[in-house]
Formats: sequence, C-alpha cells, structure tokens
Amino acid sequence: MRLYSYFRSSAAYRVRIALALKKVDAEILPVHLLKGGGEQLGPVYRKLNPQALVPTLETEAGALTQSLAIIEYLEETHPEPPLLPREPFQRARVRAFALAIACDIHPLNNLRVLNRLRTDFDADQKAIEGWYCHWIQQGLGALELMVSDRAAAKGVCFEGPPGLADICLVPQMANARRYACDLSAMPKLLAVDTALRRRPEFRVAAPEAQGDYEPPAR
Amino acid sequence: MRLYSYFRSSAAYRVRIALALKKVDAEILPVHLLKGGGEQLGPVYRKLNPQALVPTLETEAGALTQSLAIIEYLEETHPEPPLLPREPFQRARVRAFALAIACDIHPLNNLRVLNRLRTDFDADQKAIEGWYCHWIQQGLGALELMVSDRAAAKGVCFEGPPGLADICLVPQMANARRYACDLSAMPKLLAVDTALRRRPEFRVAAPEAQGDYEPPAR
Repeated sequence: MRLYSYFRSSAAYRVRIALALKKVDAEILPVHLLKGGGEQLGPVYRKLNPQALVPTLETEAGALTQSLAIIEYLEETHPEPPLLPREPFQRARVRAFALAIACDIHPLNNLRVLNRLRTDFDADQKAIEGWYCHWIQQGLGALELMVSDRAAAKGVCFEGPPGLADICLVPQMANARRYACDLSAMPKLLAVDTALRRRPEFRVAAPEAQGDYEPPAR
Repeated sequence: MRLYSYFRSSAAYRVRIALALKKVDAEILPVHLLKGGGEQLGPVYRKLNPQALVPTLETEAGALTQSLAIIEYLEETHPEPPLLPREPFQRARVRAFALAIACDIHPLNNLRVLNRLRTDFDADQKAIEGWYCHWIQQGLGALELMVSDRAAAKGVCFEGPPGLADICLVPQMANARRYACDLSAMPKLLAVDTALRRRPEFRVAAPEAQGDYEPPAR
C-alpha cells in the first residue's frame, strides 16, 4: 500500500499512527501542500483524490480517501490490535470523540479554510490565530468532559489499547501547540497526549519523523 | 430511544433518515437552535451532549452524539437493511463519501460558524452566501466524480439499497437549495437527490415533515 501524505497534515498523521499501530507497511509518498501552489491540486493527484486533499491510501483494490474511512478500512482488514472497542455503544462513544475532532475542529482550521478567510474577509494573522484557537478550545473543551479520570490516568482517551480517539487526539494537539493555543483547561487531554507521544507507534508517525519534514521557519 | 433534533439541522436529518430506513422507532425531542439564544446551550442539554450540538440519541445505555457515530451504532445494532456494503473496500468508499460531506462541507456552513464569521469578520449576508456556496460547490463537485452513471441512473450514490452516502447527500442538498447555490455542475447528484426524496423513508425525515418545522420567513 502507498500513503500520500504531508508531514504537517493532521489527517495524514492520523493514518500514519493507525498504520503503525496495526504494523502495516505502507510506502509514504509526500504531497507538498504549499509548493507550486499545492501539489494536491494537480490533475494526477486529483484522479486519486477528487477532493484534492491528503491523505489518500492506494490499495490493490484502488484509492481510498478520508482519514477516518481509511482507518475503518484498516480496522476491518487488519483487526489486530483493535482500534475500537467490541461493544456497539462503546464503539459509538469512541467514534463520536474522533468525529468531534475530524468534523468539528480540524476542518475549520484547514489550510484551505484559513486561505479563504484571508481572501474573502481580509483576515490578518492575529485574526487567523483567534479563529484557530477558538475552535480548538471550544472543541477540545467538550472532549475533555468525555475522557474519564481513570482512562486519562492510563494515558488513553478510553480504556483499553490506544485506538481511534487517541489517533485523532494527538495530531489535533500538535496543531494546537503549533498555534500556541491555551490548553490549560484540558488537563486530562494534555496528560493523555503526553503519554501517547512517548509510544513508538506515535513517534514514528509524528511530523518531525517524516522524510518530508521541514522545521518551523520562525 | 429518543432523538434530540432540530428540523433544519442536517446532522439530525441524517439520523432521522437512518432511523426510518432501519424502521427503528424513536421519540423526537425538538431542540430549538435559535430560540432564547439556543436551547442546545443550556446546562441540561450540555450534560447529554458536551459539544452542545444536535443530534443526540438517548439509548438505554446512555447518550450518543455525532450523527455518523449514531448511524454506525444503528447499523451495528440493527443490521437490516444494511446502510453499508459488505466488502471493506466498498464500505470505505461509501464512508469516504459520507465523511466528505460531514467533515469538509457541512461543518464550514454550520450556524455557529456563520455566526462567528459575522462577529469576527463583519461578514454581511452576501459574503455569508458566497462562503456557503463556495464550500458546497467545491465539495459536491468532488462528490459528483465519485458517483457512477450506473448508480445515478438507479437513484442512489452507490449501487445497492440507499445507505450512508445517500443519508448524507439529501440533507446537504437541502442546505444547498436553501442558499440557492448553483448546482448545475452536479447532474448526477441532482438526479440521485430527486429520486431519494421520493422515497417514504426520506419523506418522513424531511424538515417539513417535522413537528417543530417552521416555514421560511422570506
């Protein structure tokens, strides 16, 4: 399998963690989201991914898009170790946590959205940072309430091995740090994130461990 | 089961369609997103749904949030009729279609986001409509490429009975019509939407069939 990825894309980061947890080898093919106006916008990549977003997973059966759909596919084709609990209600709780990040935080802070705020509303860097941290704080503030003290003490969002919720949390926390958002109201999420990032599967998936990594300019 | 819903919420609309397709009875409890500043923001509702969004499904085991997590829960607890194909690759294609709407179109046009554009960037109604239709056209334009001619001719996004992709498409198309976005570049999606809306399960779930429905002011 081949994963089209960008070191800084948190959606690609999720899939990289899932691949590492599942011990599935995939060749990483970098797609630079900024260079030349964005390599993802070219016709060849668009054929694989009509949305012109990363990640895309190329499988023997064809190309798959959308990080959560790719992770559910990995879960179904490589069941061990499980990324979701077995019981339907508990699975739904974990999926809801993941979707709260994937639907209600991350897309609002995506590169293409920030660019649109600049062009449509003349947003300056300060306004962009305010917008960015607003959605992170509102979103993660709600998720803080969904993590039990017991799970947090074990270094995971939900009891059991690291799974879909953890896979979505860590990249979102990396984004929050990048924009220096105040996360002091989320002690459980901070503790879980710190514990998860020590694990080898999360380390190899991190932006700074990628071949296409670029250290921050500032 | 009890579904906290708002007639105009497209996320709640998705769950209403899923319940109807599964023939699962649920009491609908309206949550008015505008009245008194928004009933979803009160402490009682926030206990059920820390994100203060609709829908929430109250089950015997507890409250579930996030429309796609709720629909996957219904799929696992009430397998017939299936909302996803059986084969993992095909399941992932359908989930990716649904997630492209749930992550990359709908959250950008949510009430709370439009309000934020007004307060943070002084966006007027014309700018809001431009923003709204931009994401719909970009998003649905990509999805148009993911629907085969054969499926479209059968009135569904993917061959087989109506499922998760169809459940997400119809509410998103209703939003697009509400803002009068130009959809002429999406003939397949238009045909599928028209066919789906004739089905009884989609009719009973429509905004105008809800107890809390309010006809448009203009």
